[in-house]
Amino acid sequence: MTTFDDAAAAVGDLDHGAARAAAEHHDRLTKPRGSLGRIEAIGVRLAAITGSCPPPVPAPAAVAVFAGDHGVLAEGVTPWPQDVTAQMVQNFLAGGAAINVLARHAEARVVVVDVGVATELDAAPGLERRKVRAGTGNIAEEPAMAIDEARRAMDTGADVAARLVAAGAACLVTGDMGIGNTTPSAALVAAFTGRAAAEVTGRGTGIDDLTLARKVAAVEAGLARTPRLDDPLAVLASLGGLEIAALAGFVVGGAAARVPVVVDGVIAGAALLTAARLVPGVLPFCFAGHRSTEPAAAVVLDTLGMAPVLDLELRLGEGTGACLALPLLEAGAHILGEMATFDAAGVTDKPD
Amino acid sequence: MTTFDDAAAAVGDLDHGAARAAAEHHDRLTKPRGSLGRIEAIGVRLAAITGSCPPPVPAPAAVAVFAGDHGVLAEGVTPWPQDVTAQMVQNFLAGGAAINVLARHAEARVVVVDVGVATELDAAPGLERRKVRAGTGNIAEEPAMAIDEARRAMDTGADVAARLVAAGAACLVTGDMGIGNTTPSAALVAAFTGRAAAEVTGRGTGIDDLTLARKVAAVEAGLARTPRLDDPLAVLASLGGLEIAALAGFVVGGAAARVPVVVDGVIAGAALLTAARLVPGVLPFCFAGHRSTEPAAAVVLDTLGMAPVLDLELRLGEGTGACLALPLLEAGAHILGEMATFDAAGVTDKPD
Repeated sequence: MTTFDDAAAAVGDLDHGAARAAAEHHDRLTKPRGSLGRIEAIGVRLAAITGSCPPPVPAPAAVAVFAGDHGVLAEGVTPWPQDVTAQMVQNFLAGGAAINVLARHAEARVVVVDVGVATELDAAPGLERRKVRAGTGNIAEEPAMAIDEARRAMDTGADVAARLVAAGAACLVTGDMGIGNTTPSAALVAAFTGRAAAEVTGRGTGIDDLTLARKVAAVEAGLARTPRLDDPLAVLASLGGLEIAALAGFVVGGAAARVPVVVDGVIAGAALLTAARLVPGVLPFCFAGHRSTEPAAAVVLDTLGMAPVLDLELRLGEGTGACLALPLLEAGAHILGEMATFDAAGVTDKPD
Repeated sequence: MTTFDDAAAAVGDLDHGAARAAAEHHDRLTKPRGSLGRIEAIGVRLAAITGSCPPPVPAPAAVAVFAGDHGVLAEGVTPWPQDVTAQMVQNFLAGGAAINVLARHAEARVVVVDVGVATELDAAPGLERRKVRAGTGNIAEEPAMAIDEARRAMDTGADVAARLVAAGAACLVTGDMGIGNTTPSAALVAAFTGRAAAEVTGRGTGIDDLTLARKVAAVEAGLARTPRLDDPLAVLASLGGLEIAALAGFVVGGAAARVPVVVDGVIAGAALLTAARLVPGVLPFCFAGHRSTEPAAAVVLDTLGMAPVLDLELRLGEGTGACLALPLLEAGAHILGEMATFDAAGVTDKPD
């Protein structure tokens, strides 16, 4: 099994030679220089990640949906019952959820990984049973998990990433499911950025003002209870979710395997922020799939200096926004791999 | 042959019943209400356009690249020589341009329509030879074309749209090629919105300050020469391009055929603005594929109240930004057509 520490040690540098070759090749293609904007930048980064120009098309992709439950539901932070986490896992396995629909059309596989669902789940095709514990503690009152539990969840994420790449995935997509998980995400983002709870706590699935006030209070209580904000692993164990810890490991595992990792919304953003504090070198391997409407998601993007591929007012999670960005990543590779050059096409380049 | 007037008369209303059915169906699907944001809005509008819920997937799409030359090149508005228009037509026919690459992966066909290239083009598969005249007049000094020529170009666009839909296209994508065509586009946008030339004239393929000053002056001269700003057809004939006139007809033809029309950047935006002045009912059938970096493109979006699907700093044209938006339109239909409902999946809905 690949552990988090193995993966962290294996994260390397971007290949700047391949990036330069991609940028130079762009300038020979039959289009005004730079006219494909962010699509060109994506192509250059894919070359830098994979070390080849033109870069391989980042397909097929694989979506890993990490699932966990959250003790903070006791604070009344969401109207959805905890059972919905396990019900949605069944929905993923049956292929009826939004991520299944979008992944199918992106020709990406979906694996569901139980790292912390409160109830026992029966074995099923497509489900990885890697439960670390049956839901987190209530972060308003107690640590979400022990340090060792956080490590095990991170190991699981790193291992899932390594195995998906070994099985042929050329791109990884972060997915998540866990009723209540925007609360620990907001808490982690506040802890790592110094923002106030009220600034990073949003309406998640669409909660009312009273529920939002309870959610902000829960985040504040969690922050007040967390002593060492300079120790990323301690912060993760204190405030995180099991699926968030696993996602942090998954991101590091993808970077170690030198495949692009497409990060979804606020839950994945909290995981990425955690991963980046532990292993800063992961960042250039990651693409922000979209800008979620959750305020903490925008704070993560600003903090990490990431420009999202899409901005479509999404707030579903599951990996949906990242999955929707896949064709645009693929386009970055297609342009470098398939367009004609000025010379080959007999088109006059602009005089210098 | 379908004429512009035939198409204009055939543009109908959206189907509000189908739109309502789509919105209600979204609320039964296993996701928090509204959590797929703009993807949900796209699905609702596809239902309204096509009159069915779930809407048919808007595929296959067809891209029509209308090509024309511009007499305003005499003013020194671009460093690219006029020959590049015809050279790029050959590149489209050979499959090596950016639009070919992107359309191929979107499973969209590309047709190239010569409505105004300055030189004669040999017959070739994929090329429609419908030249109205061999390039426009220099709009700084004279009308771009006669009223009757504008009508013939618009007729051609409407006819191409009707024939592509008859041949199986479920979605139309606007494409364009014409060295210098950001100049007439800026002039049309200025004429229809009252903005100053300097406000809507951009750097197109990436011109320097001196060239930009000449371009602004050419737009100003064209505007000063154009007497009747309240007559859209007269404005189009005075300031437009043959490919822009054809695109205006193409948009109206697509709306008449009740298929979604995905509009590309600034050239298509100028055409859409023209079409909307002539036939306001076309607008709800159109999606803005992206926000081009050209300033006139943003003015069009603001004026028409359209939110672009993508914002990727593109400024290539050819239909590339619109083509990149196709998977997101398709996602809007897939979600409505394929996701499980709360009832069917046995997932507990949020209590009201």
